[in-house]
Amino acid sequence: MEELIDLVGKAFVDHYYHLFDNDRPALSSLYQPSSMLTFEGQKIQSIEDITAKLNQLPFDQCLHVISTIDSQPSSFTGGIVVFVSGSLQLPGEEHHLWFSQMFHLIPLLEGHFFVQNDIFRLNYG
Amino acid sequence: MEELIDLVGKAFVDHYYHLFDNDRPALSSLYQPSSMLTFEGQKIQSIEDITAKLNQLPFDQCLHVISTIDSQPSSFTGGIVVFVSGSLQLPGEEHHLWFSQMFHLIPLLEGHFFVQNDIFRLNYG
Repeated sequence: MEELIDLVGKAFVDHYYHLFDNDRPALSSLYQPSSMLTFEGQKIQSIEDITAKLNQLPFDQCLHVISTIDSQPSSFTGGIVVFVSGSLQLPGEEHHLWFSQMFHLIPLLEGHFFVQNDIFRLNYG
Repeated sequence: MEELIDLVGKAFVDHYYHLFDNDRPALSSLYQPSSMLTFEGQKIQSIEDITAKLNQLPFDQCLHVISTIDSQPSSFTGGIVVFVSGSLQLPGEEHHLWFSQMFHLIPLLEGHFFVQNDIFRLNYG
């Protein structure tokens, strides 16, 4: 069971950041009206507002490189909490931005999940 | 409602790290048999094993300094996800260790919560 959780968490993370780096508007498919994003302390809710925030970030191209993925089953039946750390590389920037992000994934039909909780923070220090 | 979530998240975080830094064995009161901790990638479950891990960390004294706390309601009725970043200061160490940690809190009676999900990572880079 632990291995399945880890596989599902990793598959989600790969999918999420692949979309982010290659087809950012398509991230809207991973959220639902109840979804919440806290981005660097800014609270955002709903598919439309979350999608707008992600698409309006002040860079067009980016590359996420994942360092760690930790997944656990959540209390919500079939749900998963996923904790990610990694770096964000922007064009023309010599230094990477390090970040941590957590997702609470809730199951939909047929093995799909949506993001209920999403919290993103750049790491300083 | 957002403000209440933030107050509850902050109160929990203050309580958790106060216990960690001053009475680490008492952290056992915040976990339940179903609780899960992933500590630097190591998966641990149950009050006893989580408590043992925390008490056997290779330092006695420490001081957590919190940088950010982000809280959201979870799908579990009354539950809260809390995302923390900060630094860990150890005696005799000039440099701080930066960390990120997430908690999924589930309500008990009378305004108390227990930690269902706990994921801790040191930040590198």
